Amino acid sequence: MRNLLIPDAASKRLNAELSPLLDSINLYKMHEGGKITFKGQRIDPEDADIHYGWFSRDVMFGGYGREYAVQLLKSPNLKWVQSATAGLDNSFFAKLASKGIRMTNSDAQAPAIAEYVIASVLERYQGFVDRRQYQASHNWQDNDFRELYNSNWLVIGYGNIGRRVGIIANAFEANVTGVKRSSVDSPGANKVITYADIQNVLPEQDVVVLACALTDDTKEMVNEAFLTAMKKDAVLVNIGRGDLIDEAALLKTLDSDQIDYAILDVFHTEPLPADSQFWDHPRVLLTPHSSNQGSGTNDRGDRLFMRNLTALVKGDALINEVDTKELL
Amino acid sequence: MRNLLIPDAASKRLNAELSPLLDSINLYKMHEGGKITFKGQRIDPEDADIHYGWFSRDVMFGGYGREYAVQLLKSPNLKWVQSATAGLDNSFFAKLASKGIRMTNSDAQAPAIAEYVIASVLERYQGFVDRRQYQASHNWQDNDFRELYNSNWLVIGYGNIGRRVGIIANAFEANVTGVKRSSVDSPGANKVITYADIQNVLPEQDVVVLACALTDDTKEMVNEAFLTAMKKDAVLVNIGRGDLIDEAALLKTLDSDQIDYAILDVFHTEPLPADSQFWDHPRVLLTPHSSNQGSGTNDRGDRLFMRNLTALVKGDALINEVDTKELL
Repeated sequence: MRNLLIPDAASKRLNAELSPLLDSINLYKMHEGGKITFKGQRIDPEDADIHYGWFSRDVMFGGYGREYAVQLLKSPNLKWVQSATAGLDNSFFAKLASKGIRMTNSDAQAPAIAEYVIASVLERYQGFVDRRQYQASHNWQDNDFRELYNSNWLVIGYGNIGRRVGIIANAFEANVTGVKRSSVDSPGANKVITYADIQNVLPEQDVVVLACALTDDTKEMVNEAFLTAMKKDAVLVNIGRGDLIDEAALLKTLDSDQIDYAILDVFHTEPLPADSQFWDHPRVLLTPHSSNQGSGTNDRGDRLFMRNLTALVKGDALINEVDTKELL
Repeated sequence: MRNLLIPDAASKRLNAELSPLLDSINLYKMHEGGKITFKGQRIDPEDADIHYGWFSRDVMFGGYGREYAVQLLKSPNLKWVQSATAGLDNSFFAKLASKGIRMTNSDAQAPAIAEYVIASVLERYQGFVDRRQYQASHNWQDNDFRELYNSNWLVIGYGNIGRRVGIIANAFEANVTGVKRSSVDSPGANKVITYADIQNVLPEQDVVVLACALTDDTKEMVNEAFLTAMKKDAVLVNIGRGDLIDEAALLKTLDSDQIDYAILDVFHTEPLPADSQFWDHPRVLLTPHSSNQGSGTNDRGDRLFMRNLTALVKGDALINEVDTKELL
C-alpha cells in the first residue's frame, strides 16, 4: 500500500475514479487549514507517512500550500509529486529534486493560457476598446483592424504552452517561429530556432510570446537590447514568469513608444504593487497571473493526475515527468 | 482588345502588375464622383464600351458605387465582373446575372471576418470588460474564463468564410459542425450537416455563427423557434446579412436571458438606427458591417482580381466563379 496525500476537495471530485485504486492506495486527506484525516479520523501529521503528493490547484488556491509543502518535505518515503503548474521554479520543487523525488508537471493549463494569449493579442489588434466606445455612443463608426493573418510570431519556449499558441496562430496563417533549446521541428511552428538566434529574428516579429521556464539563462532575457531590437508595432506577451523581463527597461520602452503593446500576466512582484506604473499604462493590458484560469483547467488537471497515479500503480511510464537534475 | 473599367485608385496600386496585360486590355478608369478617363482624357460614359468590371472596395467605399454599377449595366458587351463581396444578394448582381454576365465573388475578406468572429467570441468568453475595469482600479482580481477548448460550434454556411472560422476553432480544439446544402466533409469541420438538421443539433451548441448567403430559404432563419432551441449560455454571431435574423425575436430572447450574447456585424437596416435597442443592450457587441476590414483585405482582393483578369486573358478558369442561375 502507498499513502497519497490528496486535497480533500479533489478526493470528493474524484471519489468514483479513485475507488478502483483503493486496494493499492491509502487516501490521506488534507483539508483547508492544513489538518489531515485518514478514514475520517483526524491524525497527527507526524503519523502520515506520505508516498505520493499532488500539489493541485486546490492546494494552491485553498490557502494551505505551506502546510501541504511542509508535509511532503518531511515525508521520508516520498516517491512522487504531481504539480499543477508547468513551471517548477519554486524552491519547494528544488528541495524535492535534491531528494531525488520523481516529479511530473502539468499541461492542464496549456489550452487556457494559449487562449489567453491569442485572445489578448486579438483584443489589441481588433481595437475592442474603440469599438465599445462607438457602440456606447450609438456611433456607426468602423475601425480597420490588424490581422493575425501573415503576422510573424516568435514563441519563446515551445513546450506544452508555446506549442499550443503556435498551433492556433498557425491556423490563423500567422508565421510561427518557435524557440527551443534544440531546434527540432515541432507542430504549429514554421521553423524552430535556438535561444542563440533570437536576436537575429526579433526585428521581424509582430508578436513575441514568453512561454519559457525561468532559469539562470532566461532571467531578464527581455532587457534593453532585446526591446530595442523589436519592431515599433510589436506586441510582447508574458505568460511565463515576471523575472523573464527587466521591468524597468520595459517601462522605458513603452514610455518612448518603441513597441506597441505589452500583455502581462506575470510580474517581478505579485500581487503587483498598487503604485506600479504598469496599471495605468496605455500600452499595457495586465491580468493577475490568471491566464491559466480557464473553465477546463481543473478538469484537465484531474485527468492528468489520475492518469499518472494509475500509471504509477501499474508501473507504467508517467506523463510529463520532469528531469529533476534541471531543477537543482 | 478588351476594355476594363478599373477604379482609378486600384489602377494606381496595380500599375506595375497591369502593365504586362496592356497589349490585351484597355484601362478605362473611374474616378471619385464617377468621371471616366481613357489614356488620361476624360470621356463620355456613352463612349466606354466596357467588357470587364471590378466592383472593388474602392468603388464600395469611394462613394461612386451607383455610377460604377450604372456604367456596367448599360455596357452591352460586358463579359465579366469581379465583386469585392462574398454575398451577391444585391439587386445589381441579379441584373447582371439576368444578362448572363460571368461573375466571380471574393474570398479576400474571409480571413478578416474569421478573425473578427473568433476575436469577438473570445472577447466575451475571456471577460475583457471586467479585466479592464480591474486594471483601471489597480485591483489584483482574477476572472475565470470560458474556454473555446471543447466548446461546440455550429457554423451555418461553410463556404470561404465559414470554413476559415471552422479551421481556427478546430485549432482551439472546439468541436465544429458545418452546415452546407450538401453534407460533404470539409476542412476544420468535425462533421457537416445540411440545413434540415440544424434544429436537431442547436441545443448542444455553445457558439452559432451565421456565415451563409441570404436567400429565400435563409431569410429570418433565426426566428423564435431557432432561438428557443439554443442553449442558455450560447453566443450567436452574425457576419452574414441582417435579414438572416428576425431582429424582434432576437431582442425578446436577449431581454429574457434565453441566450448569453449576440455579436452582430450586420442588421436589417444599415446604418443601424440611433434608437435601435441593440446599441445599449448588455448582451450585444455590435460593429458597423466592418468585420471584413482587416489590414490584409485590400491586398488579398487585389491579388484575386489580378489572378482572375490574367486567367481571363489567357482563357484559363476563373477562381470563385459564381453559378449565376442561383442569383435569379
